[in-house]
Amino acid sequence: MKLATYQINHAAPRLGVVQNNHMIDLEDVAQITKEHLPKTMLDLIDMGLFEVKRIQGIIDSLTSEQLSNCSYPLSNVTFLAPIPKPRKNIIGIGLNYTEHVAESARTLDTTGKLPQKPIIFSKPPTTVTATNTNILLNPKLTQQLDWEVELAVIIGKGGKYIPKEEALNHVFGYTVINDISARDCRREGQWIVSKGQDTFAPMGPVLVTADEIENPHNLNLSLKLNGIEKQNSNTKFMLFNINDLIEDLSTVFTLEPGDIIATGTPAGVGAGRNPQEWMWDGDVVEATVEGIGTIINTVKEIK
Amino acid sequence: MKLATYQINHAAPRLGVVQNNHMIDLEDVAQITKEHLPKTMLDLIDMGLFEVKRIQGIIDSLTSEQLSNCSYPLSNVTFLAPIPKPRKNIIGIGLNYTEHVAESARTLDTTGKLPQKPIIFSKPPTTVTATNTNILLNPKLTQQLDWEVELAVIIGKGGKYIPKEEALNHVFGYTVINDISARDCRREGQWIVSKGQDTFAPMGPVLVTADEIENPHNLNLSLKLNGIEKQNSNTKFMLFNINDLIEDLSTVFTLEPGDIIATGTPAGVGAGRNPQEWMWDGDVVEATVEGIGTIINTVKEIK
Repeated sequence: MKLATYQINHAAPRLGVVQNNHMIDLEDVAQITKEHLPKTMLDLIDMGLFEVKRIQGIIDSLTSEQLSNCSYPLSNVTFLAPIPKPRKNIIGIGLNYTEHVAESARTLDTTGKLPQKPIIFSKPPTTVTATNTNILLNPKLTQQLDWEVELAVIIGKGGKYIPKEEALNHVFGYTVINDISARDCRREGQWIVSKGQDTFAPMGPVLVTADEIENPHNLNLSLKLNGIEKQNSNTKFMLFNINDLIEDLSTVFTLEPGDIIATGTPAGVGAGRNPQEWMWDGDVVEATVEGIGTIINTVKEIK
Repeated sequence: MKLATYQINHAAPRLGVVQNNHMIDLEDVAQITKEHLPKTMLDLIDMGLFEVKRIQGIIDSLTSEQLSNCSYPLSNVTFLAPIPKPRKNIIGIGLNYTEHVAESARTLDTTGKLPQKPIIFSKPPTTVTATNTNILLNPKLTQQLDWEVELAVIIGKGGKYIPKEEALNHVFGYTVINDISARDCRREGQWIVSKGQDTFAPMGPVLVTADEIENPHNLNLSLKLNGIEKQNSNTKFMLFNINDLIEDLSTVFTLEPGDIIATGTPAGVGAGRNPQEWMWDGDVVEATVEGIGTIINTVKEIK
C-alpha cells in the first residue's frame, strides 16, 4: 500500500492511500463505512501491518460510487512528508556505500577506511519537509550545500537486540529521503549542524508498506540536479544492509515505532566531484528510489 | 516553582509541584478546584510561564485542609524524569568548559583548541531515565563508561534566529542531566553511540522554572562517584553561556517548546583523570546543580 499524509486546500493534514492516480481519504472512508480508522501515519504505524491489510479490505469492499466519493485526483492534493513530525531525530547512516566512502575521503575529513560498524548521526524533526517545498540555504551558515539520495526505513514494531534474521519483521515501510548536507558546517567533526538545519530532510512522496517492496536490497536510487543525473546506484551496494543496520542500531538504542533510518547515500554527491559542485538559489533537485517515487525540491536562499 | 513528573504506587505518571517537602498533585488540585490544569510537563511547557503563575495562585488559594488532601510526602512518591519522553533528541553541547577542553584533548580524540562555535551532538529520547534508576552498562559495547554533570535548559517559547539579548525569555526552566558517555563508542568521530545508549541521560529530580533561578550563570555543579567528589565547578565558567547557545542553536534549528539543551560538563570526568577511571556495575553516581537538586543513579551491568 502507498500511504500519504496530504492536504487539500490547506485544510488540516489527512491520511490517505494512493491508488489508481487518486488519493483515497481515510477519514472519508471511515465516515462512509462507520469503521474506526487511524487519523495519522504514526497512529497507523503504531497499529501495524495488520491494520494496513484491514484498511485495504475495507477499501476493496467499497462500491465504485462510495470509492469515488472518497477519492481525489492527485493533481488536486498537496503531499506532505509521510511523517511530518517524527517523534525523535531521524537516525542517519554515514558512509554506507563503498564508492561514497572513497569520494568522501578525497575531499572531506573522513578516513577512507571502510567502516567496521555503521556510522550513525541524527537529523532533528525540524529538518523534515515535503516534496515540492523549498530547501532553505542560509548563506551565513554555508557555501557548500550538497545532496544525498537515500532509501529510508520506517520502523514498525520496536525492540532492543533485534537479530538480523528478524530485522525485516520490524520494518513498517520505506520512503525516500534527500539527506541535505552543508559540508562546511562540521564542528569538531560532529555532523549535526551540517545535516540538521531546517528543511534538510525532504521526505516522501509516499510511504510504501513493506509488503509491497519485494526486495529492499535491490532498488535503484538516483538523483538529478537541474535535470542532470548526479547519482545512480542500487541499494544492493550498501555496506551494511537493512538487516545489519537494525541489528546494530537496536543494540545501541531501543528502536520504537515510527523511527526513521536514512540508510546512506551512494557516490555522486557534490563534495566528491571534481571540481566540487554545490546547490544554489533556484536549483531543482529530484531524488528517486525505485518503487517509491520522486521528491522534488527547490533551493531557496534566505535573506 | 519546582515541578516534577512522578508516580505513586506505580500508577500512571502525574504532574506535581514540590513544596514544603510534599508533592502537590495537580490532578487532585484540578478536581478540588474545578480548574482546568495541565496533565503533563510538556502540556505545561506549551502553556508557558503564565500558566505556572496561575497554578501557584490556585495552590495559594487552597485551604490548608484542601492542600493537605492534594499533598503526598516526598518519601512516598517516585520521581520520574521531568520530561520522561522528549519530543526529539536532547541537544547536547560538547567541550563547553575550558578545563574540560584541555582534559579531553589529553586523552580523547579532540584537538584541545577552544571551540569557535558550540559543538553540538544529540541524545535520543530513549536515553532519558529518572533519579534512583539504573544506568545500563553493556560490556559488549563499552569498557569506558564515564560521567558528566550538566545544567540542562528547557526551552519554553520556541523560535528561529533568537538574538542572545532575548534568549533567556525563551527558557521555561532548568534541570540536571548526567550526560553519560561511553568513550570507546565513537564511530568515525561521531558521538551519538557514545552518548546515545538507553539510560545515558539521567535527568531531574525536578524542573525548576526560570523565575526561580536568579542567575543561571552562577550555579555550582558537582558530581560524586561512590561518595567521592569528581567534578566541582560553576556555570559561570561556560565558554558559550546560555544566551550564546540559544542564539547559535536557533540559527541552525528552529527551537521548539520542550527542547532540552544539555549545556556541557566541567573538568573532572573519568576520561581526563590520570589514571583514567570508569564506572562499573554497582557504582553510585550523584550529580548536583545548585538550586535544582541531585540525581542519584546506580550502574548496572546487563548480561
